Amino acid sequence: MDYVTRVDAFAAKMGKYDLDLALLFDRDNIRYFTGFRLNRVVSSILAVSRNGNTTYIVAQLDLKRAKRDCWIEHVIPFPEDTPNYLASLAPLLRGSPRRIGVEKDTLTLAQMEYMMEIAGAGVEFVDVRGLTAQLRIIKSDEEIACIRRAADVASRVMDKVRQEIRPGVREAELASWTGYLMGKEGAEGPSFEPFMMSGENAWLPQRVASQKALKDGELVLLDMGAVCDGYCSDITRTFAVGEVSQEQKRVFQVAWKAQQAAIEAIRPGVHAFEVDAAAREIVEAEGLAAYFPHLTGHGVGVSVHEAPILDKGVDTVLQPGMVVTVEPGVYLPRVGAARVEDMVLVTTSGCELLTSAARDLV
Amino acid sequence: MDYVTRVDAFAAKMGKYDLDLALLFDRDNIRYFTGFRLNRVVSSILAVSRNGNTTYIVAQLDLKRAKRDCWIEHVIPFPEDTPNYLASLAPLLRGSPRRIGVEKDTLTLAQMEYMMEIAGAGVEFVDVRGLTAQLRIIKSDEEIACIRRAADVASRVMDKVRQEIRPGVREAELASWTGYLMGKEGAEGPSFEPFMMSGENAWLPQRVASQKALKDGELVLLDMGAVCDGYCSDITRTFAVGEVSQEQKRVFQVAWKAQQAAIEAIRPGVHAFEVDAAAREIVEAEGLAAYFPHLTGHGVGVSVHEAPILDKGVDTVLQPGMVVTVEPGVYLPRVGAARVEDMVLVTTSGCELLTSAARDLV
Repeated sequence: MDYVTRVDAFAAKMGKYDLDLALLFDRDNIRYFTGFRLNRVVSSILAVSRNGNTTYIVAQLDLKRAKRDCWIEHVIPFPEDTPNYLASLAPLLRGSPRRIGVEKDTLTLAQMEYMMEIAGAGVEFVDVRGLTAQLRIIKSDEEIACIRRAADVASRVMDKVRQEIRPGVREAELASWTGYLMGKEGAEGPSFEPFMMSGENAWLPQRVASQKALKDGELVLLDMGAVCDGYCSDITRTFAVGEVSQEQKRVFQVAWKAQQAAIEAIRPGVHAFEVDAAAREIVEAEGLAAYFPHLTGHGVGVSVHEAPILDKGVDTVLQPGMVVTVEPGVYLPRVGAARVEDMVLVTTSGCELLTSAARDLV
Repeated sequence: MDYVTRVDAFAAKMGKYDLDLALLFDRDNIRYFTGFRLNRVVSSILAVSRNGNTTYIVAQLDLKRAKRDCWIEHVIPFPEDTPNYLASLAPLLRGSPRRIGVEKDTLTLAQMEYMMEIAGAGVEFVDVRGLTAQLRIIKSDEEIACIRRAADVASRVMDKVRQEIRPGVREAELASWTGYLMGKEGAEGPSFEPFMMSGENAWLPQRVASQKALKDGELVLLDMGAVCDGYCSDITRTFAVGEVSQEQKRVFQVAWKAQQAAIEAIRPGVHAFEVDAAAREIVEAEGLAAYFPHLTGHGVGVSVHEAPILDKGVDTVLQPGMVVTVEPGVYLPRVGAARVEDMVLVTTSGCELLTSAARDLV
């Protein structure tokens, strides 16, 4: 990956916004610029100066590995498990930056107060979330190759889980099995806490996997994804346990038809809200609009959930190189819930499906 | 669990600190007060007023389940995937709270700026992390029962993984398998991203599981834990792949002996730094002090990593009902790394081991 180009592009944007320094704490932004993988319980900080110089601040225990594996030359340690872990920032702040770029949805009050104490109260914090999102929203060919691998792993895992759908097996057992299958396939791990929800758990919807066992005649949703080389996938399938009713089949068909309509709407130049509307029109025509309570899709990349959002009122214009999920759902109380979620790459002429697991109900 | 008592105890502390309102965003604090389980990708907010009244703000999609399963009566939704997801806080902030309790290591700048905009610039943010830590540091019998279950699951899983240690199997495969075994055992999932590190990966140390295959003659560390009913476990074992050298065996013996010394030091009235010193003395006597680069242990509860920290300079006094890990490690370059980590409950007379998986090298 061309990490240096990424940092240079970010530094150029910093110049436009008159930022002296950017301090990034968000683990996905840091992975995007450094390529360095950390355990999810571990933090790090990436400092970028206006001229593109970088300092990477990692936990003492990760220092040797970061020096060996990360392209950034200036790597310094911070002490873990102490209240003064931010002390490593002091030398950067003593240069008296006036305007510091931060991720306002990630920087904590404790971190901000520390910086104000060292740098002085005159410092201004400027949100750079928009700048990093701009960089990340269009995927390069190298990034798309990683996302394809993550999508392939998730598709193969999903097809294996399909074989195990039967009465008596518990939601949590199958959801946790997906993580093992991903590990076997060479993934770093799951891209989020996978969840399976069956029967009445599904139409709530539940969004976790419980100890409930699958029962004959239920619809079951499994939503999961893998991480490969730092890039995420995200896929949902709906399964029938044994025989299901005509009404359940209809719920599934409406959700799937809505998904197909949204995918057909995806091409460069289309607005996000138009893709969302294509899905909602199908669900509404079936009189089920009230039972589709969430977005139609979201971007996927280093984060499993990033720009662009495909939802009502979002006027982002789709462009080649964007990768999004398409996942309208129908959750009908006392009947069942269904959602078919695929990942789609926006191409120059339309779009391409990245996930491939079987989509039918049985 | 007696969630009402927990909230009342917290509200009493709020009164002492003259707080009008507390807004909690930390998922572990929220789980402690609500008992409600959410997918890890999903957020929620718990508002507690000075008189102990609570409002729980959950994503629209989680509303039905929260109303059904959570003890809190006043549950309101926030819209996901929109920049104005904090709008649900407005009614609480219009009561003009002057002093708002927040978790300063969790509240983000975006959240703070929103609150200042609604409540006015005169509002003061007061850190309540100390107050919640005080409540959570001593575990009740009910909490200890949950932690025992999580420790039992992790112990059984560890003993199963031990059977699979052999040349050729990959770190990531075994690490991901632990998650599946936990799911089968009835756990909610892993308490953190499990990691296995072998050979040179271990002495770095690596702290993730890579695609590297285990090789004959290596020491291998597996660090993992489960969540049961919202409570975590955390355990590490070191395995030998085939035959290992006398020097590798010595590294293991020193780490294990240091752990045993620390466990022997644990009883009510002892300072955290004394437990840490007991481990360090053993490692130092063997001339390996420079290769033990981390803390000796940490508390475990709703969070896998919480108070008290067992490390140099920490003067917390151990009390009955505290649960801590004990995990000194030795990471000797070009030889191997070893760590034996167990969970320990401080009792009225000493301590009790909660984890039980076999500890020997082979």
